[in-house]
Formats: sequence, structure tokens, C-alpha cells
Amino acid sequence: MALLSILTPVLAVLLCLVIGFMLLKPRDTGSKTTTAVKSNFRPWVDQDLQDNTEIRAREEDDGDWVDSNEEEEALPHIPYSPVRYSDETMLERSKTFYALMNQRRSVRFISPEPVPREVIDNVIHTAGTGPSGAHTEPWTFVVVSDTEIKHQIRLIVEEEEEMNYRQRMGEKWVNDLSRLRTNWIKEYLDVAPYLVLIFKQTYGILPNGKKKTHYYNEISVSISCGILLAALQNAGLVTVTSTPLNCGPQLRLLLKRPANEKLLMLLPVGYPASDATVPDLKRKPLDEIMVHV
Amino acid sequence: MALLSILTPVLAVLLCLVIGFMLLKPRDTGSKTTTAVKSNFRPWVDQDLQDNTEIRAREEDDGDWVDSNEEEEALPHIPYSPVRYSDETMLERSKTFYALMNQRRSVRFISPEPVPREVIDNVIHTAGTGPSGAHTEPWTFVVVSDTEIKHQIRLIVEEEEEMNYRQRMGEKWVNDLSRLRTNWIKEYLDVAPYLVLIFKQTYGILPNGKKKTHYYNEISVSISCGILLAALQNAGLVTVTSTPLNCGPQLRLLLKRPANEKLLMLLPVGYPASDATVPDLKRKPLDEIMVHV
Repeated sequence: MALLSILTPVLAVLLCLVIGFMLLKPRDTGSKTTTAVKSNFRPWVDQDLQDNTEIRAREEDDGDWVDSNEEEEALPHIPYSPVRYSDETMLERSKTFYALMNQRRSVRFISPEPVPREVIDNVIHTAGTGPSGAHTEPWTFVVVSDTEIKHQIRLIVEEEEEMNYRQRMGEKWVNDLSRLRTNWIKEYLDVAPYLVLIFKQTYGILPNGKKKTHYYNEISVSISCGILLAALQNAGLVTVTSTPLNCGPQLRLLLKRPANEKLLMLLPVGYPASDATVPDLKRKPLDEIMVHV
Repeated sequence: MALLSILTPVLAVLLCLVIGFMLLKPRDTGSKTTTAVKSNFRPWVDQDLQDNTEIRAREEDDGDWVDSNEEEEALPHIPYSPVRYSDETMLERSKTFYALMNQRRSVRFISPEPVPREVIDNVIHTAGTGPSGAHTEPWTFVVVSDTEIKHQIRLIVEEEEEMNYRQRMGEKWVNDLSRLRTNWIKEYLDVAPYLVLIFKQTYGILPNGKKKTHYYNEISVSISCGILLAALQNAGLVTVTSTPLNCGPQLRLLLKRPANEKLLMLLPVGYPASDATVPDLKRKPLDEIMVHV
């Protein structure tokens, strides 16, 4: 008791400090918690109201993709008069192009037959004609034909994919999928004559060494990828649009890409294998994807 | 002192409780803080290492876009053997397609001349052939030809754009841009025969009413938009890829789109105006966008 009596002032002081600390701590914690909640918990409605475009508003210099940036606006404007077709020709061309594109399917059974390198150059060059926010052209297409590198890519992707499958799918589903030859085994990564790894440049480096934000870089590169798919289909080549999970950083390092580049997609490219198959599925009819006002 | 002596046991107990509480609290706080930091503070390098694909990993059922979802995996596979061209033909086709796509430019001076509705249907139908995560086809193309609705869209977009310009650009820059006819005035929104508003479906509704996540919906819709741009160019029509800032929710309500749809892009479509001009800029050469390994 005596000891306690002596200690009392000490205890009292300690208690005051502790309580004071407690009183401050929660606010602190509170704010952090809210931020955490705000940024992690994304109810659908909020997500809709808090439109991405709003978040970008403060960053973006213009909603239009002017195919030019601030300095380039100083560029003179030149007349633009592309070929003009008659109504009949337009109709015919648009029908034919639809028919061609509608034959495209994601194909995973790719033939090892070689494909002329010049054709690959042309389709990549075509992808590079896409529009981009402020004409930043924030894309890098890494075309891999080296057998050893292709194999290393396969090892990286399969290791991650196996984890994805095993962790998130039950034995049964995994077996079902493997019977359908849809599993973490990506034979095509070794087999396809070319692997096209599409990197988005999340920012640019200015001459003065400063970083330049590439607005809408993911959307820009994805649009460019759509044009690439059209070019491949037009050339009679097949691919499957894949977004390897967790592999971005490893593949970036393997391919020696700079820190401002992030892997967006990986497309194996080649002719379809003679025994290639695709799931027998349909696309939505026009009236389910188009609304006329 | 006596009073304190009496209170001592109480104080001691209180102190123990408080300290115990303190010992638990931090862990709790800690985790929350880390989450908050992870998700809000995004230095370039971290952003690269903490690849988006990793964030998606837990959600995504397969890195590959199998053009089919879990149920559809039950679909039988069918043989796939598209047309195959000779090397010469492939080369020729890839060259011609590049030349055609390379003529595409973002055009803001659009002619009011009518465009056959069927051509628009065909290009939208073509856009609908794009691949999508788990074949969700998460896109809605709203084609607006109604003069009054087009004008209301213009009012909404210009109001927001004017704020964007005035808030973020100095008088001088605004004047410079307006001399170049690049400002918040979007005449083409009234003039173009068609406005195509592309919405991404951020989630789907299952028959049982439950929400179904549409993985990679923004990338999928952007790829589809790339195919749309190719189809428009192929038909001899022009557009400018725009991402109206802050207008998403207002335009969604104006067009009576459901809450799961978010505006991704707005494309005015038509023939170029006879006096159409474009900034005289160049595209990166092939060796700046392609790396061969």
C-alpha cells in the first residue's frame, strides 16, 4: 500500500499521458479508417456517381483527344480530306468489314508455323495509328520470337496461373476446365511463333528529365490493341487476348522494360493450329448492344 | 494523498485496462493505415510493382479472355479454321490495312450531311465483335441522331468543358486555343449526324437479380472502341475520340441508361466538313513503338 502510495503520483501522471494519447489517437485512426473505407469499399452506385471522368477532370487538359498536346497545338492545321465513298460503297465496305471481324475468335491452339516477320511489323505499325490522350502514343509492343525468352515467359505465367487456379477453383472445376484444355498450362506461349507483350507507358520522361503524366494511357493502349486485333484478323492470323495475372513486374524485368512501362496484355500470335477449336458461343445481337435515340 | 491512496487500486486497474486497450488498438490501426496508404499513395515505382493485374488477381477467374464464362465453358468446342492467305496475300493485306488506318485522324470539323443509318448499324455491329473478359460483352452503344437530344448533350458537355478550360488554363492559352478553334465550344455535337456514346457496363444483372462483376470492363470496351474506329475509317467516316469530363452521370440520366452503365467515350460521327483541318503532327516511327526480342 505504501509502495502504491508512493507510486500514485507516477501512476496518475502515466494515466493522464495515456488518456491524453488515447484521446488523440482515435481521431487519427478515424480519418485513416475513413480513407481506407472510401478507397477500398466501392458500392456500385457510388462508383457510378463518382465517375472516373470526374476524378480525371482535375488532371485532364481536354476531354477531346486532339491528337496533339499543348506545344503541338502550336502546329499549323492542315486541310484533311480523306477518300469519300458513295453510299453503296460505304454500305458494302461496312458489311464486308463486319463479316471479316465477326469471324474473329479468341484462339488458344496456335500453329508453330513461322509467320513472315514483315506482316507482324505491319500489324504493330497499324496498332500505332490509334488515337491517344494528347497524342502521347503511350504504348510499347514487345514482339518476342526468341525460343528461350518465350519459354521463360511461359514459366513465369504458368507459375502464377497455377496459383490462380489452385487458390480460387475447387479440384472439380480445375479438372473440368483441364478436360476442356482450359487451365494454367499455356502451351501456346512456347508454340506461337510470336508473343506480343503490350506495355502501357504510365508516364513519359520530358527532355528535362521530369515526369509527364500520360492521361488515359490504359484506355489509349486498349484502343490501340483493338486496332491490332483488327489488323491481325485482316491478315488471317489469330490470337487470344490475355492479361497475365501478377506477372507484370516479372515480365517487365525479364524484357528489360523501364519502370514507367506496365504490362497490359499478352497476345500469342500465329496461324491457328490445324485442330484448333473454340467454344461454340454466340455474340449478342445488334439490338442488345445498340440503342438508337 | 489519502484520497489518492484510496483511489490507487482503481487507478492501477484503470491503467491496466487502458494499457491493454492501447496494446490492441495499434495493430488494428496499423492495418487500416497500411490499406489507406497502399490505396491512396501511389508513387510511380510502387504503382509499377503493385501492378493492377495483381489487384485484379483475386477477382479474375482466368488471365485469358476465353470468350466464354464459367457456365459457357460447358459449351462444346467446335473446330475453328478461318480463311488462310498466302504469305504474299497476307503481306499485301497487312500493308493495305496499315495504309488505310494510317490515314485516320481525329477530326472535329464534321459535315452535317446525312450518313446512311445502315452503315452506322454495321460499324456498331463490328465493334460488338470484340473480345471481353469472360465474354461479358459489357458495352452499350447509344447512337443519337435526334436533334434536340444532341443539343442537350452539347449543353451538358460545353458547360462542363468551359469550367475545365476556365479553371485550368490562363486567359492567354484559352485565346490561343480558341484561335485554333480548340476550346470548350463543341459545335460538332449539334452538327454531326450521329453522336455515339459508349457506355461500359460496370456489372451485369444475373437472372436471380444478383450483380455479376464485369472484369476488365473498361479495357474490354476500349478494345471494342478501337475496332469501332477501324470500322469507321474503313467506311470513310470520321470522328474524334472524346472523354467528356464530369458529364458521365448527367449524360447517363439524359439517355436513361441504367446505374450499371458508365459513360466511357463520346464519338461524333459523320463525313469530314469540306473545310476540315487537323494539326500537322506526325506519329512515332515503328522502331519507337516496337521492340523485337
